[in-house]
Amino acid sequence: MAEKIKITNETRAKVLMDALPYIQNYYNKTVVVKYGGNAMTNEELKNAVMSDIVLLSLIGVRVVLVHGGGPEINDMLKKLDIESKFINGLRYTTKETMEVVQMVLCGKVNKELVSHLREHKGRAIGLCGLDGNMIVAEKIKGDVDLGFAGEIVDVNTEIITDSLDNGYIPVIATVGAGVDGESYNINADTAAAAIAAKLGAEKLILMTDIAGLLEDKDDPETLIPTVNVSDVPSLKMHGIISGGMIPKIDCCVESVRRGVGRTAIIDGRVPHSILIELLSNEGIGTQFV
Amino acid sequence: MAEKIKITNETRAKVLMDALPYIQNYYNKTVVVKYGGNAMTNEELKNAVMSDIVLLSLIGVRVVLVHGGGPEINDMLKKLDIESKFINGLRYTTKETMEVVQMVLCGKVNKELVSHLREHKGRAIGLCGLDGNMIVAEKIKGDVDLGFAGEIVDVNTEIITDSLDNGYIPVIATVGAGVDGESYNINADTAAAAIAAKLGAEKLILMTDIAGLLEDKDDPETLIPTVNVSDVPSLKMHGIISGGMIPKIDCCVESVRRGVGRTAIIDGRVPHSILIELLSNEGIGTQFV
Amino acid sequence: MAEKIKITNETRAKVLMDALPYIQNYYNKTVVVKYGGNAMTNEELKNAVMSDIVLLSLIGVRVVLVHGGGPEINDMLKKLDIESKFINGLRYTTKETMEVVQMVLCGKVNKELVSHLREHKGRAIGLCGLDGNMIVAEKIKGDVDLGFAGEIVDVNTEIITDSLDNGYIPVIATVGAGVDGESYNINADTAAAAIAAKLGAEKLILMTDIAGLLEDKDDPETLIPTVNVSDVPSLKMHGIISGGMIPKIDCCVESVRRGVGRTAIIDGRVPHSILIELLSNEGIGTQFV
Amino acid sequence: MAEKIKITNETRAKVLMDALPYIQNYYNKTVVVKYGGNAMTNEELKNAVMSDIVLLSLIGVRVVLVHGGGPEINDMLKKLDIESKFINGLRYTTKETMEVVQMVLCGKVNKELVSHLREHKGRAIGLCGLDGNMIVAEKIKGDVDLGFAGEIVDVNTEIITDSLDNGYIPVIATVGAGVDGESYNINADTAAAAIAAKLGAEKLILMTDIAGLLEDKDDPETLIPTVNVSDVPSLKMHGIISGGMIPKIDCCVESVRRGVGRTAIIDGRVPHSILIELLSNEGIGTQFV
Amino acid sequence: MAEKIKITNETRAKVLMDALPYIQNYYNKTVVVKYGGNAMTNEELKNAVMSDIVLLSLIGVRVVLVHGGGPEINDMLKKLDIESKFINGLRYTTKETMEVVQMVLCGKVNKELVSHLREHKGRAIGLCGLDGNMIVAEKIKGDVDLGFAGEIVDVNTEIITDSLDNGYIPVIATVGAGVDGESYNINADTAAAAIAAKLGAEKLILMTDIAGLLEDKDDPETLIPTVNVSDVPSLKMHGIISGGMIPKIDCCVESVRRGVGRTAIIDGRVPHSILIELLSNEGIGTQFV
Amino acid sequence: MAEKIKITNETRAKVLMDALPYIQNYYNKTVVVKYGGNAMTNEELKNAVMSDIVLLSLIGVRVVLVHGGGPEINDMLKKLDIESKFINGLRYTTKETMEVVQMVLCGKVNKELVSHLREHKGRAIGLCGLDGNMIVAEKIKGDVDLGFAGEIVDVNTEIITDSLDNGYIPVIATVGAGVDGESYNINADTAAAAIAAKLGAEKLILMTDIAGLLEDKDDPETLIPTVNVSDVPSLKMHGIISGGMIPKIDCCVESVRRGVGRTAIIDGRVPHSILIELLSNEGIGTQFV
Repeated sequence: MAEKIKITNETRAKVLMDALPYIQNYYNKTVVVKYGGNAMTNEELKNAVMSDIVLLSLIGVRVVLVHGGGPEINDMLKKLDIESKFINGLRYTTKETMEVVQMVLCGKVNKELVSHLREHKGRAIGLCGLDGNMIVAEKIKGDVDLGFAGEIVDVNTEIITDSLDNGYIPVIATVGAGVDGESYNINADTAAAAIAAKLGAEKLILMTDIAGLLEDKDDPETLIPTVNVSDVPSLKMHGIISGGMIPKIDCCVESVRRGVGRTAIIDGRVPHSILIELLSNEGIGTQFV
Repeated sequence: MAEKIKITNETRAKVLMDALPYIQNYYNKTVVVKYGGNAMTNEELKNAVMSDIVLLSLIGVRVVLVHGGGPEINDMLKKLDIESKFINGLRYTTKETMEVVQMVLCGKVNKELVSHLREHKGRAIGLCGLDGNMIVAEKIKGDVDLGFAGEIVDVNTEIITDSLDNGYIPVIATVGAGVDGESYNINADTAAAAIAAKLGAEKLILMTDIAGLLEDKDDPETLIPTVNVSDVPSLKMHGIISGGMIPKIDCCVESVRRGVGRTAIIDGRVPHSILIELLSNEGIGTQFV
Repeated sequence: MAEKIKITNETRAKVLMDALPYIQNYYNKTVVVKYGGNAMTNEELKNAVMSDIVLLSLIGVRVVLVHGGGPEINDMLKKLDIESKFINGLRYTTKETMEVVQMVLCGKVNKELVSHLREHKGRAIGLCGLDGNMIVAEKIKGDVDLGFAGEIVDVNTEIITDSLDNGYIPVIATVGAGVDGESYNINADTAAAAIAAKLGAEKLILMTDIAGLLEDKDDPETLIPTVNVSDVPSLKMHGIISGGMIPKIDCCVESVRRGVGRTAIIDGRVPHSILIELLSNEGIGTQFV
Repeated sequence: MAEKIKITNETRAKVLMDALPYIQNYYNKTVVVKYGGNAMTNEELKNAVMSDIVLLSLIGVRVVLVHGGGPEINDMLKKLDIESKFINGLRYTTKETMEVVQMVLCGKVNKELVSHLREHKGRAIGLCGLDGNMIVAEKIKGDVDLGFAGEIVDVNTEIITDSLDNGYIPVIATVGAGVDGESYNINADTAAAAIAAKLGAEKLILMTDIAGLLEDKDDPETLIPTVNVSDVPSLKMHGIISGGMIPKIDCCVESVRRGVGRTAIIDGRVPHSILIELLSNEGIGTQFV
Repeated sequence: MAEKIKITNETRAKVLMDALPYIQNYYNKTVVVKYGGNAMTNEELKNAVMSDIVLLSLIGVRVVLVHGGGPEINDMLKKLDIESKFINGLRYTTKETMEVVQMVLCGKVNKELVSHLREHKGRAIGLCGLDGNMIVAEKIKGDVDLGFAGEIVDVNTEIITDSLDNGYIPVIATVGAGVDGESYNINADTAAAAIAAKLGAEKLILMTDIAGLLEDKDDPETLIPTVNVSDVPSLKMHGIISGGMIPKIDCCVESVRRGVGRTAIIDGRVPHSILIELLSNEGIGTQFV
Repeated sequence: MAEKIKITNETRAKVLMDALPYIQNYYNKTVVVKYGGNAMTNEELKNAVMSDIVLLSLIGVRVVLVHGGGPEINDMLKKLDIESKFINGLRYTTKETMEVVQMVLCGKVNKELVSHLREHKGRAIGLCGLDGNMIVAEKIKGDVDLGFAGEIVDVNTEIITDSLDNGYIPVIATVGAGVDGESYNINADTAAAAIAAKLGAEKLILMTDIAGLLEDKDDPETLIPTVNVSDVPSLKMHGIISGGMIPKIDCCVESVRRGVGRTAIIDGRVPHSILIELLSNEGIGTQFV
């Protein structure tokens, strides 16, 4: 964000006033943010997200930050010369890979986020699905054995609500606690949706690298601001929801179905997109209701 | 405030971000606002103050609103044909006048403010110094008998902190509970300062109809942003503090001396001056430290 | 009360002992007292009511005092030369009248009661239906427009129970918070009944200027001590309940129907009638069950 | 008490009103009553004491009832043919005697009092100095070995305050928990004084079979209503305090010295003497300040 | 227990580790122990029980100790020359006998247990069914009048849970509070079962002087470790449950039916049988499920 | 541990009984365990430590587990071909190394411990010094620049006590939160000592790979069970404390000086050495007082 913008007191006051009804709306409500994509790799964007999260927690929103860390995991696997095995085109998570996943997610990405929040004077606590037996997982069932890629059996939210009640911002790496005692790699979008559903969150925000759902995927002017979950099948059929969007939007639909107030896919490439989404009329991206 | 200002998302985000350190600073702290002057008679300004107060209470500031009501009292005295008695140039508060003061302050001004805050979705409670024996007062001692004009003996803040703890914005009319059982008329600036001191407030804000303390009272460009209370005597000697400013500034000095973090005289004629004072770098008016 | 009565220790002990089962019965229960009539205008009676309320609150009864203030309002309207408008024989509350009602009820009558309770060492808090959005009201619906005469839409008892839990005696002026943002004049009997019902009170006491319900209205010896609410229609038919008694008794019936344990109409002209009603076998007035 | 007294409503109200300042004075304060003498053996007096205690606990007094039980112990010793051994004129408490003392005090007297309070709808809990290690004791030191007659080393009031906080009336038999693991017989007056001192009680009341301290012990008209503890030595010297009164009055002096607000010796032969002492102007008996 | 056993650190660690799953299982759960038989008369066994109870309470088990006291009652009745009356072969509890029962149970047995627990550094509180109106009882109904032998009408567990919450071990003598104001003698097994049921206890343990339920009552090797309550009628028919066992086992069946997790009859003649039953795989005695 | 040991019920009971006084001693007290050495690399020993920690937390000890992870860090540095830089013989922690340290300690070692505790049904939470700004650190001051090797400036124990109060076992990786925003590598022994001191722990246990402090380092029979901290200088002078022992013992001395009740160096090579140290008379290793 250009630091040069000259803002009058009048504008300052107006912006804060415009935010008032949104602040009232989210007061003491839970918002789960799935953090990922460009917003996680670009330093300026990362800083903006961190300050957004700290601001939200201060104005009374119970923010939970869930993150993945694909690029960092890939870097480390490469440095360690660990090759990725594929079975029928699907990635197989070996024990060795899983150890790297856990180490990078919980030790590098997670704690760096805690550290960044601290820089912005946020009081954060870095957790993963193992802590307090939070994300109970098991091997993905199916024809193909995908190793330590897991699916969620249950979410124990007590450690999250304890942290929120004690005034911490929980930052969650989505390593699951296998019922067999092993650690499992859990998709972060899915985990965020499951956590939001179990917490009865007011809102789930998935940060992506697209502008939202577009009628014409090449024309950002065709953004669809709101989608009713019952229209999703039709949107899939017409190819408007396609490719990598499908699992993300399935997460949105699933979380809305399981009681999350609203779910939004927002453009993580826009600085402060979380604040804009939550505290302004325009919003940013596509909301599922 | 002109509703036409077109504000970009970028600006919105920047304003909110600029506010962040101030929000952190006042989080869970007590701020006492003495409300009066133009900001109380002009509808637009009044609305701005109300929304400021509601916003502050939402972002975690424990706001206490103390008010006077001179013009409304004078109107009512006039309507009731009650003449003001003066002794040696000082106004004498008769029993009859005091009854009107109490009725107007507690029944009209105070409850209207509660009503206005309610319109902005604030949860307010209208109190006066009689409730919970809050402002203990006695007859002003001195050569001249001023009737039911009182001075403060003690402040019982329990009813204020109970209200804040239960999530209400206390709105306080400064009628004092005399140790003799009578009601006394208490100067609202003095009461605000005494309440702020007893609450150990982080900040006391006195809303006035001037820009602040000016080196040259005719040139608003000569605003003195910060004054050390130890410099006040010298400023009085040089006539920079003079006339009606003297008692207000004495309140500021006294409250700082009794432990209030900072005290400011702000320009109530500027919309949202409270927000600007608390949540921006520039501030507005003169601060005493 | 004649101070000369010589009372032996034996009598003192017996009176206190006689009160014991009643004290046990009302311990930690809520009693709503609608205060009005002679008991409010006569100084000796007023003092007796104040000390009764303080005593009850000390022995563990959660007392809520609801009051009107007709005579004081009329006095002030007269002083201000505001004429009462009538439409089809019903009083029309203009905006101007409503402002006087609010000012007198909340600023004069309400705070004077707080002050009187303070004299008897009671810890009172003066509230009105605007505080904490307590009495939600709307314009009375019907063929005739009665201006700002309101009826109750809902009662938010939180501010009352917060006050009781914090050890205050809530004193309530029945100005309602209109869903349209306006203040409405609410009948105090109706408001007391609605508050008692929503609080699940053990007892509602309406103070009146009659001995109770009389078989023969000219013979106080024919007092009916207890009435079953199912007998009210028949009593109306036989003219035993008639005139100004009708709305009061409708309040009683309504509150019993909505869960208030017992409701009584008592003779406010008898000193300490509240104490006698609550703490002795005889009671005073007529009770509805 | 004669049930025939005809009491008017006016008198009832006056008695309750007269009690108001005393109720305010003892509200939420601790009063320790040492129960004994005729008031414990005469059924009518016992009933009066029980109802006094229940009433006091209802009106917010934290009452602690401490009792002895000499006559019942003597009866049982006699029935069991256990002779009392004396050494140099002092009673020696053998192990066998001590077992009877404990059994009668804790099993008979104490639980019967609990049962009586229950009849008056009091919620009582019967404790002794062994429970929660309440009264820590050791053998009385001195030239003569008195067996299991103990003196107090410390009082652990936690079990008493827990009981009071949970809404029970603690009834305490003064058997002490010896630091050597044995039970010790503790003088009930001394124990009551020590308990009152450790609780920081507002008042200690010792029930006796005399009218109080008399100038002329044969003339009840010469009752001394208040004694300053500093005058006690002189009163002893003049023989006004003598004989069996000496240890009781030493208890009073000691408890006042250790911080109990006021201590009184009252005439347990007068029905409801506790109520009269606490809730009326006259009091009954002699108070030490 | 022979103090000479030489135990290695390895064994110590293994024993503690073996206990771990049982400690986890009973953590914060309620266990009611009916104490009686040899374990109560033999000093070594009694010491073992006391230390077991203290240990259990320390490791987080909410232990409630219920006791009888037949032998001590008989001793005292004999010493006092009170003969036992029998009607149709059943013991008749006269008023005189009942007074002895209460005195011995509540004053002697109960307080001695408190004293023993204190020696083992346990924080105990001695209660009976009269305290806090805990065991509400009435005369046993039936053809034969058994005097003050009572049956349970209701159990008010508040005083028990208050004691547990405050960190005390409740020790309970089973004297019942008659709805008629009298004390009643209550069978301790029945009382323990009723208390366990009302508390929703995890386990009820009845200490007896037999090894448990034996296929062949003369061969301890034929112990039946677990019995399903539905098999009890058949076991009675085959004479495996017979004689004095019948009422005890009826208690077990009844408590399991009313929600107690498990009930066990254990051999009180084995030192530390409670610990062995609760904290080891073998258990001891017969468990009903 | 050999699973074959046949243990009698008698032995089981004796072991538990022997542990009783130690359990009483540590009840609700804080014990900080610095975990490291063989006990961390050997699977059997690790399992024993995990179950010890779970058992201690169940019996009411507030256990805090602090760990290092040197071998795992070295493995990962080697795998990543990161060479260790040395300056004047001291290891220099580069930014790159520090990232590996954090990743391995917080993501691998720490979360694996959480996972192991979970297998033993412990409720653990994995934290590092960044979470909740727990270990505030700065660059080690001195002549030589050691990069990101840090020393402790302050310990904020709130996140630890919050975790303990909510029933979690905190497992702490000693990465420090630099006042400059960077992460710092903190010596785990030093961190454990600082945490224990700030928590006011009852005991600090440092697990090592030696038997304790030996008079003759080659003869385990010469173990010194207890050392007074004032004797440490002399022991150093005589060479009994030497080499790698010096910093560990300095930690012990420092923590005792800063208020930790007792500190012990124990032999981590002995299974269940923590349990033996805390719950038996012999203890294991050397204790500093």
